[in-house]
Amino acid sequence: MLDFRTDLADERAEICKNEIKKGELDGIITENENISDKISVTTVKVLNENGSKLLGKDIGNYITINIENIEVITNEELKQVIDIFSRELIKLINFDGPILVVGLGNEDTTADEIGPKVIKDLEITRHVFRYKPELLPENTKNVCAIAPGVLGTTGMETQEIISAIAKNIKPSGIIVIDALASNNISRLLKTIQISNTGIIPGAGVGNKRKKINFETMGVPVIAIGVPTVVEAATIVADTFDILTEKFDEFSFLKDSSYKEKYDLVKLVLEPSKYNLTVMPKEIDELANNMEEIISSGINRMIIPE
Amino acid sequence: MLDFRTDLADERAEICKNEIKKGELDGIITENENISDKISVTTVKVLNENGSKLLGKDIGNYITINIENIEVITNEELKQVIDIFSRELIKLINFDGPILVVGLGNEDTTADEIGPKVIKDLEITRHVFRYKPELLPENTKNVCAIAPGVLGTTGMETQEIISAIAKNIKPSGIIVIDALASNNISRLLKTIQISNTGIIPGAGVGNKRKKINFETMGVPVIAIGVPTVVEAATIVADTFDILTEKFDEFSFLKDSSYKEKYDLVKLVLEPSKYNLTVMPKEIDELANNMEEIISSGINRMIIPE
Amino acid sequence: MLDFRTDLADERAEICKNEIKKGELDGIITENENISDKISVTTVKVLNENGSKLLGKDIGNYITINIENIEVITNEELKQVIDIFSRELIKLINFDGPILVVGLGNEDTTADEIGPKVIKDLEITRHVFRYKPELLPENTKNVCAIAPGVLGTTGMETQEIISAIAKNIKPSGIIVIDALASNNISRLLKTIQISNTGIIPGAGVGNKRKKINFETMGVPVIAIGVPTVVEAATIVADTFDILTEKFDEFSFLKDSSYKEKYDLVKLVLEPSKYNLTVMPKEIDELANNMEEIISSGINRMIIPE
Amino acid sequence: MLDFRTDLADERAEICKNEIKKGELDGIITENENISDKISVTTVKVLNENGSKLLGKDIGNYITINIENIEVITNEELKQVIDIFSRELIKLINFDGPILVVGLGNEDTTADEIGPKVIKDLEITRHVFRYKPELLPENTKNVCAIAPGVLGTTGMETQEIISAIAKNIKPSGIIVIDALASNNISRLLKTIQISNTGIIPGAGVGNKRKKINFETMGVPVIAIGVPTVVEAATIVADTFDILTEKFDEFSFLKDSSYKEKYDLVKLVLEPSKYNLTVMPKEIDELANNMEEIISSGINRMIIPE
Repeated sequence: MLDFRTDLADERAEICKNEIKKGELDGIITENENISDKISVTTVKVLNENGSKLLGKDIGNYITINIENIEVITNEELKQVIDIFSRELIKLINFDGPILVVGLGNEDTTADEIGPKVIKDLEITRHVFRYKPELLPENTKNVCAIAPGVLGTTGMETQEIISAIAKNIKPSGIIVIDALASNNISRLLKTIQISNTGIIPGAGVGNKRKKINFETMGVPVIAIGVPTVVEAATIVADTFDILTEKFDEFSFLKDSSYKEKYDLVKLVLEPSKYNLTVMPKEIDELANNMEEIISSGINRMIIPE
Repeated sequence: MLDFRTDLADERAEICKNEIKKGELDGIITENENISDKISVTTVKVLNENGSKLLGKDIGNYITINIENIEVITNEELKQVIDIFSRELIKLINFDGPILVVGLGNEDTTADEIGPKVIKDLEITRHVFRYKPELLPENTKNVCAIAPGVLGTTGMETQEIISAIAKNIKPSGIIVIDALASNNISRLLKTIQISNTGIIPGAGVGNKRKKINFETMGVPVIAIGVPTVVEAATIVADTFDILTEKFDEFSFLKDSSYKEKYDLVKLVLEPSKYNLTVMPKEIDELANNMEEIISSGINRMIIPE
Repeated sequence: MLDFRTDLADERAEICKNEIKKGELDGIITENENISDKISVTTVKVLNENGSKLLGKDIGNYITINIENIEVITNEELKQVIDIFSRELIKLINFDGPILVVGLGNEDTTADEIGPKVIKDLEITRHVFRYKPELLPENTKNVCAIAPGVLGTTGMETQEIISAIAKNIKPSGIIVIDALASNNISRLLKTIQISNTGIIPGAGVGNKRKKINFETMGVPVIAIGVPTVVEAATIVADTFDILTEKFDEFSFLKDSSYKEKYDLVKLVLEPSKYNLTVMPKEIDELANNMEEIISSGINRMIIPE
Repeated sequence: MLDFRTDLADERAEICKNEIKKGELDGIITENENISDKISVTTVKVLNENGSKLLGKDIGNYITINIENIEVITNEELKQVIDIFSRELIKLINFDGPILVVGLGNEDTTADEIGPKVIKDLEITRHVFRYKPELLPENTKNVCAIAPGVLGTTGMETQEIISAIAKNIKPSGIIVIDALASNNISRLLKTIQISNTGIIPGAGVGNKRKKINFETMGVPVIAIGVPTVVEAATIVADTFDILTEKFDEFSFLKDSSYKEKYDLVKLVLEPSKYNLTVMPKEIDELANNMEEIISSGINRMIIPE
């Protein structure tokens, strides 16, 4: 594997398992639950600094919901996925009181629009609590939301904006939704990851930005992410790996340095000036299904039935 | 005139002139400039409390740029309007240093989308100043921007959001862009108003919200507005007024109370539960032209040629 | 009533009932069915030339489904409306074999986008029948669809385009979907009309175009319409009518000629060069609900459960 | 090179030149023109059957306009590209009389939306010629247009729709606009190809559909295409090729069969069920620039200045 370029904790756990001898996986617990032929849930718990270092992820819980063939999902199955997602989300919410939901990403970029789109479909209640609380069913949660845009269109770090708003409205917790990168094409638009460790905005599709987490926000931050793209570099590296595995004559390359691999990737991709990403041609439709699962699941948390 | 339901200062000045005896217009100065057959500029200056009370507008300058037949504008004329708009905007900017531009309104509502749409077409520079200042031409202004959404979708007062962000990034001035209401169908999508007095978000198309101005933000606030809708009630009131003027038999109604007029409006409109507004059928196309003028004009201020 | 400017047959029937002495309504049958507090169905049957002349509508059946408070509809109620709509639609389909569905209107104009939007959400099957029929459930209907655009963007009469395609693919029937005009603000985005008499494209929001019906297409044409706008002229005329009714002093106007009324409307509206229309401010959201009802209802017809 | 999977004639010509001995290139003429540092034009003429067979493209002219760094293009440069594009387009139009412009592709799929988007920005004149010819400047061309949608949303072959409409309105020529595939990442969103040989709809991003050309339409067909995607398979094949070139140890693979290479590609990509394509992350913005060049260039042809 060329590098560890994935935001998915269960992918990293998988990689760890293969690379590290058993017994050394101290600090990482992995659980699997098969809900149906189509739906499964993986929970990765990073318990301590050792696990965090091994996995390259902060201490906390990472839940991934995996859905096979989401492009042909029935209404029944969709309802089931929403149930599971809502259940797992609520498990991670260990705070009462107002919630700020943040939709990260650029709504005008196909691979990056899931955050802002979810925000538009949420049942926002904070202003109703303030002006017409009698309209709200019992047990409704106090929720406000914002899609702050991205650095390139606002000129402000997302963290700056969210932190300013959080200071002002004082939520008891924050939920952020973002597109993620995967280093595994099989995960694209098939997985929802929920974690209680916060997020680095734009990790999925751009430069690393400042973290949005408990340290920077002062309240718990739950992150919901969906892998929408794989970098083109990943495909090149995969090809290299498969070749060296498949042909004995290439075994001499097995120990080639990171630098050598990186040079190869650069050689293949440099004719294009742009940031090349790999996406399913069907991304628009697949992303719509994901968006519906997440917004419906959060709405069920906001107004329990 | 049934009521004073307009955000346009020059409309109000017009009304004042007709209703108030000359000499009493102390505190209001009005100037006109005809740029061409197609373009004219009106400046209304509210100098003191008396003028402010008479006009129902805060002390400050209100500039309106009027464009005839914007639906058939040539590229030459468009360029000229952008020049004029940019010139008038710069006149009102009496501060140096970073600027925060705010696009008010709901980008998914046709009559309310001009603010968020302008934001998307601006040349944002704040992050370039921070990370790659060498890329910027000399005299470039430091500008960041946000489209915060509306109360119904965020649950937060727009003023809360902007004030929080302004406290954090400390701009030397704020520019807000919003759709306005007019009480005059002839002004729809024909006029751009610029003022240095701030704005009440959503004044154009909904309930009154909290002001965004020097008092609440701590820095100068310049407002740019375009009238996109007239309330249906205005059309009813106009009909009533014209009838009572036109037919002597109706003269007895001339002195009918506000209450009586209001009852009539209610009678006509109450069969619909919804907030009825009057818009040109061509609104989408007309609004696009307005959006281009405003974004190009602001960009010329950001990066002078 | 200033004129008969409505596409809704049940509105016209209502007007007829009030204006024409009983017994003379030969050729028009009206039936009502209350499904629930929220949903009702009205059927107007125009049986002969006399009825057609009286009503100003072609001979055939006109069904209107009325939904109260569609803006706060529950999922249960939405499902019920879809059931009713689907049931009534199937009643009117008296042909077997391939169906061509046509979404009329301009998808970039808020008041006119319902036709093209419905098309995008249909379960199209014609190409699957041709290339992979084994994928289709039993009893699936053979359906293809097109959103041809409007005269202003294509340069072609909609009738020309549809007729050319129909000649080529030879459907056994055509279903067209379009936005309608109403002369009654209470009907806006509250009603779906289904008829087996065809349609005049753009009747709702523009100039009269050539008919799409059995005569011009050679196969049965079923029309589905939703009133989305009222012309501003209607509001003016309504005000005039209510004033003359309410104030005895105005009784002299009761017999004013069409010309006089028309002059009044012109006087009120002429300050604007544009085609002024009245819409609910909430139109985008309301139209989305209508779009879902129609596309889901047609899909149920295509693939019966 | 794994296969010949590109719609760009100049790419194919380049490949031919490298693979075929000089002198055998009978039937293919290639010309280059450098307009500026940023803009160049390549013309490939396929003169006879031999050239057609060698190049795998129909007999005719293929012009490619190449633009470096289109993401930072100035207004001056944009104007220049539009000039060049318009000039080259007019050169290929060897017919008088009405023109039908067809925007191929799916406007809701990022990589495939350029055709329908261009259509929306054209100056359509056919209906004005019919109803108000006095409004049109002298020398205006009679143009109508349609964006017919794709097989998956219409159920009809694009060729069926266009052929039916062409039979009905009888244009003297057809212009089609479509997204293309390239097998070279350096060409993505950098090139416009114009040819007088027609097009196979969806060649760029899906299955091969029926040709739209002189044979099937009965009138000349000019095709305008922009490469927007590379298939992920191309990246895998490129990696393989570069590896075998770079490492002597792999020379034994140089003669590996098509089957072996194909198996490798499949191995790398099969973990994803979807059709993986490679696009610049910046595709939305880049495609907007391309769309403006093409619509402005065609408009200049319609209404000469």
